[in-house]
Amino acid sequence: MKREIFIGDVGIGGNHPVSIQSMTNTPTGDSEATLAQIRALALAGCQIIRVSVPDGDSLAGFKKIIAHSPLPVVADIHFDAGLAIKSIEAGAAGIRINPGNIGGKERVKTVLQAARDHKVPIRIGVNAGSLEKKYLHLNGSKAEVMVQSVMDKVKFFEDNDFLDIKISLKSSSVRETVTAYRLMDKACDYPLHLGVTEAGTIFSGTVKSVLGIGSLLLEGIGNTIRVSLTADPVEEIGVALEILKTLGLRDGGVEIISCPTCSRTSVDLIAMARQVEKRLASIQTGHKVSVAVMGCEVNGPGEAREADLGIAFSQRWGYIFKKGKMIEKVAPESAVNRLVELVQLETGSKT
Amino acid sequence: MKREIFIGDVGIGGNHPVSIQSMTNTPTGDSEATLAQIRALALAGCQIIRVSVPDGDSLAGFKKIIAHSPLPVVADIHFDAGLAIKSIEAGAAGIRINPGNIGGKERVKTVLQAARDHKVPIRIGVNAGSLEKKYLHLNGSKAEVMVQSVMDKVKFFEDNDFLDIKISLKSSSVRETVTAYRLMDKACDYPLHLGVTEAGTIFSGTVKSVLGIGSLLLEGIGNTIRVSLTADPVEEIGVALEILKTLGLRDGGVEIISCPTCSRTSVDLIAMARQVEKRLASIQTGHKVSVAVMGCEVNGPGEAREADLGIAFSQRWGYIFKKGKMIEKVAPESAVNRLVELVQLETGSKT
Repeated sequence: MKREIFIGDVGIGGNHPVSIQSMTNTPTGDSEATLAQIRALALAGCQIIRVSVPDGDSLAGFKKIIAHSPLPVVADIHFDAGLAIKSIEAGAAGIRINPGNIGGKERVKTVLQAARDHKVPIRIGVNAGSLEKKYLHLNGSKAEVMVQSVMDKVKFFEDNDFLDIKISLKSSSVRETVTAYRLMDKACDYPLHLGVTEAGTIFSGTVKSVLGIGSLLLEGIGNTIRVSLTADPVEEIGVALEILKTLGLRDGGVEIISCPTCSRTSVDLIAMARQVEKRLASIQTGHKVSVAVMGCEVNGPGEAREADLGIAFSQRWGYIFKKGKMIEKVAPESAVNRLVELVQLETGSKT
Repeated sequence: MKREIFIGDVGIGGNHPVSIQSMTNTPTGDSEATLAQIRALALAGCQIIRVSVPDGDSLAGFKKIIAHSPLPVVADIHFDAGLAIKSIEAGAAGIRINPGNIGGKERVKTVLQAARDHKVPIRIGVNAGSLEKKYLHLNGSKAEVMVQSVMDKVKFFEDNDFLDIKISLKSSSVRETVTAYRLMDKACDYPLHLGVTEAGTIFSGTVKSVLGIGSLLLEGIGNTIRVSLTADPVEEIGVALEILKTLGLRDGGVEIISCPTCSRTSVDLIAMARQVEKRLASIQTGHKVSVAVMGCEVNGPGEAREADLGIAFSQRWGYIFKKGKMIEKVAPESAVNRLVELVQLETGSKT
């Protein structure tokens, strides 16, 4: 088990569930725009927000953001130890630095002192694209070198009696990212922040992030995740939530199981599944509710039977199943309404 | 290494690259509509197409489809051994059956005989949702029971001297699917067809398929893949290709590496990355070309330097890198055009 740290009230590591974070892309100096984005992210399910503080001008905005943010705020700092210290003093719930680009060991010590004084955890964040030069020519795979770079920094933190750490080591290559985190997971017991960096646009970035983050979580590696997309950050939260739901790491909500349709399908199942998904998306449930929408008699009854509620179509009828029993036969045209209604009744969300 | 089989001219197993397949969802009796869908799928990158043959009426359409399909055609058969035999005689390049629902062992033997006579491989396809009753009450996890069900069928095929086999064992649960395929991979050397069944709509289905199929491929498991979405099957091919590209299992094409943007970003990077991706999507290249589009000076130059071509923005300029060297400085407003032009020149695709 990993050590436990807290970013605001969100526990990471220990027995805490995997948490979701994102990063604002509004100018930090524009605190109103940034707060609006944070609120939208919080509503979507984001639990921790990171805001970059690139210069003194953004520091004033950062203070306002902290004062009004519904989520704990992490400051993302590069190059300037003074900004890291000022962000901590401003009330950041955490900071993220790459100790390799913050201006030498003495400067890092001053940051550690400030973080210790304010009980603020630090993420050591190393990216394949910004490794210090001295690591570029080491022997070993890129993943091994990234881990070496992190471990050197961890040792320095430990030597300075600072253990309030989480770690990330991201690459834009999914294979490299997965390999690096696997090695890191064995090398120390600090909680891990997972992500694939510079993952790309919403389509290719989703595929890369799901594959990199998801396959690590499937192995039990990772304590907090950030999906990176070159897109509105709210999109990142949807993908992150779907990864956690898919792996059974997030309770609640409705899971739609639907078949890919084939020539056996006699109803417009694509439209029906979309409608059911859309109408049930906002239902809050304490435990996961699975709803199957199946086009034919081959796998339909089996999947519908295993779901909490489900429908399987024959040529003429939709057969509704509830926890393994066929309970109703409906005409295709009233199938969506009836299925949604039954799910709402089942989950107590019928108004 | 897995045994080698051939579906038409597409090799599966052995040293063959992972191939992509899909399934039509048009009525098989409507051969024109089905052929139009197959052509669209072939254009998108599909290599093997499966068509369900649910009844005698669809058999006439199936024959026409085989006669004109640009892809090798697999017949998907349930319940009726006679249809399996007629599909083989009609020229199917492969058939998919679940031997548990085809009408008893003697019927399966007649199918094996026809397949042997015509040198047609058979996929043994077991789904969690349609396991025979006798397996539902066995001890062990669902994944173990699915593997047991497949192995019983494999033994029967082997006893009848039929080894031209590939195997699938799909569940709508990603964890169950991954566990089942891992066990199967160790249990025999027949090539594996990967998929998560009834994965759902385009969003949740993409996440499930990428996670299930991708994490297995990352472990070196899987010889041919089918992404299942409740959507136009052409969408499945895009997701499948992206999985293979992400894992370095498919040569060629352009990979866009772009950052998620943050408050340091001073240009409209989301729009730029989308434009670059769109304008370079159709470029055919023998080897993968990576193109980085980066918003700032933190990871930008590092990632841009590692890419074949890349751009990293400062507040005022875009710096274009080619294989590690900064070669040009451009204004943000001409950055997309110039980067696309350089990629086209580099790949010989400039018209």
